[in-house]
Amino acid sequence: MNIGLFQFAPRRGRPDENAALLEDALRASSVDLLIAPELATTGYLFLDRGELADVAEEVPGGPTAARLARACRETGRAIFFGIAERAGDRLYNAAALLTADGACVIYRKAHLFDTETLVFDRAGASTSFASIAGTNIGLMICYDWRFPEVARLLALGGADLLAHPSNLVHPHCQDAMITRALENRVFAATVNRFGSESVGGVTVQFSGRSQVVSPLGERLVTMGPEEEGVRVTAIDPALARDKQVTPRNHVLEDRRVDLWGALLNDHRSAG
Amino acid sequence: MNIGLFQFAPRRGRPDENAALLEDALRASSVDLLIAPELATTGYLFLDRGELADVAEEVPGGPTAARLARACRETGRAIFFGIAERAGDRLYNAAALLTADGACVIYRKAHLFDTETLVFDRAGASTSFASIAGTNIGLMICYDWRFPEVARLLALGGADLLAHPSNLVHPHCQDAMITRALENRVFAATVNRFGSESVGGVTVQFSGRSQVVSPLGERLVTMGPEEEGVRVTAIDPALARDKQVTPRNHVLEDRRVDLWGALLNDHRSAG
Repeated sequence: MNIGLFQFAPRRGRPDENAALLEDALRASSVDLLIAPELATTGYLFLDRGELADVAEEVPGGPTAARLARACRETGRAIFFGIAERAGDRLYNAAALLTADGACVIYRKAHLFDTETLVFDRAGASTSFASIAGTNIGLMICYDWRFPEVARLLALGGADLLAHPSNLVHPHCQDAMITRALENRVFAATVNRFGSESVGGVTVQFSGRSQVVSPLGERLVTMGPEEEGVRVTAIDPALARDKQVTPRNHVLEDRRVDLWGALLNDHRSAG
Repeated sequence: MNIGLFQFAPRRGRPDENAALLEDALRASSVDLLIAPELATTGYLFLDRGELADVAEEVPGGPTAARLARACRETGRAIFFGIAERAGDRLYNAAALLTADGACVIYRKAHLFDTETLVFDRAGASTSFASIAGTNIGLMICYDWRFPEVARLLALGGADLLAHPSNLVHPHCQDAMITRALENRVFAATVNRFGSESVGGVTVQFSGRSQVVSPLGERLVTMGPEEEGVRVTAIDPALARDKQVTPRNHVLEDRRVDLWGALLNDHRSAG
């Protein structure tokens, strides 16, 4: 399948402008799936929960999802983009995958980072799998990278590709996603924003460098720290379904779950 | 504490010579703990199980452990080194941690790599924790790196430092250990051998580049691909006990074990 990475700098607090940028990128790109950054519709920083609530949208009922769902139908393409989701009185840091046949899958970020915990609600279980053009997609968002269990569960569930919208500020994730790819033998597409935001005396600088990593740990695409636009690459899911590191080592079957009983213990009880 | 990395090229099939090299390195180094490569007493390749059995030793009853235990007592130092262990009719790819006060902890490699599966027995549960000079040590061997669950369990059990004797042939582990350090906020000391071995038409080239990584993902020591000798560095376990990535993010407490029920599923049932 062809995946596109749309690296850009969302306009803070302007969902309509950002939806237009997402739609333009989708219509202009020959892809099966376009992946955009975390919180692509709203920007990242919010003065308070009220400001977040003003720009959050229902998914798929809200205007951005409606607009992009139509573009997906008309182009035969899919898009996966970060969005501030309103669900009743709840507000989630989420990402929506919209397909050409009208499906909408919503993943809600499991691990909130820093001040996100002040404005977003903690997510419960949400859907983190989809299938596009014969490729199984596992969904995760930004800081989820730091928890190897997230990518592992996606790989165990059959994901060929980790789709990973991000708003990264620290330098380590892009290298760590090579480890995620290797330890699970999957493709990993991290789509990060660039630029900066300043709100209430806080300034955050984002790091760009969106990338696609192969199941063998090779970088297939590396974007620049301030590069704007779409980069397209073809990936073959068969490569992610070959889990043999050697003829005698299958990276998932070799797991010694018989020795790992404490893995789901609470930190304090395990320590 | 001061840890030493002893990178060398073990002499294949000559446990006495290798034990002398280990003893010399221990006596010459001002360390609390000296870490040596995987299978430091025997070399890596074995023509068959019979050849392995000829050089395997009981631990701590065998001659290498006895010799090094005496050196530990006399120097007040500890050593952790890879050894081919005989236990009854079983043969394990193991590593022994010997301390100045006479303790012996044996870790048996949980994940055997490639042709190791042809000559070594599969390990059951073994001890993988020790404490030296107030620092909690988590024990793992070489290919265990590829399974994030191994380092995670050691961190959950309180390890400040991952002690990681290796015989690496592939290029990815050293970078991946930065990820292991970051995702658990622990120190990680990978001690790899260098040189090559040829047995029965098979040649294996080892990659050196032993290293120590900090809980913040910085390389504190990086040895060359063919460098021989001991490199010493001081580590402060307090840094590994600060698990706050941000004031609002504790890298172990943030784990969403409530969402991870499938993590211990067998690969085939989960897929």
